Amino acid sequence: MRLHGFFRSSASWRVRIALGLKGIDHDKIALDLLKGEHRTPAYLALNPQGLVPALVLDEGQVLTQSLAICEYLDEVVPQPPLLPADAVGRAHVRALALQIACEIQPLQNPRVLNRLRDNGVDKEGVKAWARGVIEDGLDAYEARLAATAGRFSYGDQPTLADICLVPQLGNARKFGARLEWPKILAVEAACLELPAFAAAAPAAQPEAQ
Amino acid sequence: MRLHGFFRSSASWRVRIALGLKGIDHDKIALDLLKGEHRTPAYLALNPQGLVPALVLDEGQVLTQSLAICEYLDEVVPQPPLLPADAVGRAHVRALALQIACEIQPLQNPRVLNRLRDNGVDKEGVKAWARGVIEDGLDAYEARLAATAGRFSYGDQPTLADICLVPQLGNARKFGARLEWPKILAVEAACLELPAFAAAAPAAQPEAQ
Repeated sequence: MRLHGFFRSSASWRVRIALGLKGIDHDKIALDLLKGEHRTPAYLALNPQGLVPALVLDEGQVLTQSLAICEYLDEVVPQPPLLPADAVGRAHVRALALQIACEIQPLQNPRVLNRLRDNGVDKEGVKAWARGVIEDGLDAYEARLAATAGRFSYGDQPTLADICLVPQLGNARKFGARLEWPKILAVEAACLELPAFAAAAPAAQPEAQ
Repeated sequence: MRLHGFFRSSASWRVRIALGLKGIDHDKIALDLLKGEHRTPAYLALNPQGLVPALVLDEGQVLTQSLAICEYLDEVVPQPPLLPADAVGRAHVRALALQIACEIQPLQNPRVLNRLRDNGVDKEGVKAWARGVIEDGLDAYEARLAATAGRFSYGDQPTLADICLVPQLGNARKFGARLEWPKILAVEAACLELPAFAAAAPAAQPEAQ
């Protein structure tokens, strides 16, 4: 399979972690979103939405949306699992992942921040918006960890929740959010001890050099 | 099980459809978000995030996040399925659902529109923002349907994608979006012929009377 992504995109970062945890051999195509490489005819033919990531399977099908891709990888390569074995546990992990993927990341991604600028919000206002949605969202995630966390966000194995959390912390730092979440930071440290998480970081990608 | 929801909340609406398609008997607790009933100590004890929906299982566990709840229902009551049987099909349906749940709904829900007002965007600007994100998002969904749709968003059975689409169209109408999506509107019409979709509409809830 072949992953089309951007090293700084948090959605691409999620899929890099999942591919790494599963140990799935794949090719990488690095797009430079700052140069508009997601808007070329060649890429739009692949993914008409012009978003990253896109995962092209060996049979040619194109998968989009990072969480849908991670669930696919978990179905076709079950070990190590990205979700617990029991239905309630799976619901809790998916809810943690969605707390980030639906309630934080969409509100601070470049497209939305550009919309804010178009609506007359100034540079400082845009940064404060991004910080605010990240801090509110991660406050709620930290509170939730009191019920769910072990070494990782849910119990003692990394899951889809951690796959969303670590890239979101990258964005938290980028926007200067206060990092006062002891449980979240402990989970992040546990994740970064795993080679799959370390190797997926934006700074570890060749195009970051 | 017991569903805590709000008749006009599109996330609650999704779960009502899923419960109806599965034919799952359940109790309903109607919260009035306009009266702040999601902020009472009793509800916050149940769901500290103060969001709807929340599904309380007979064993007492509380599930949150509408897509995580729908996936749970699909796992514990497999028939009729909300996802196709094959992994690629499941990835495509989840991607359609996430196109709405991550890229449209979060950008036009009340919390975000309130944030916009706090940033000095005026009433007309807020409505135009909501219309814009809905139109851009449903344009992309309509384009995607060319590859995936049969009678429903993906093939000829209702799926998680339709569960997200129909409530989003409710919001599209509320904000006066242009409804120029022939494939989407045909899918919506097919959905509304099913009792589970018809019974889940906000106007069909007792508290709407």
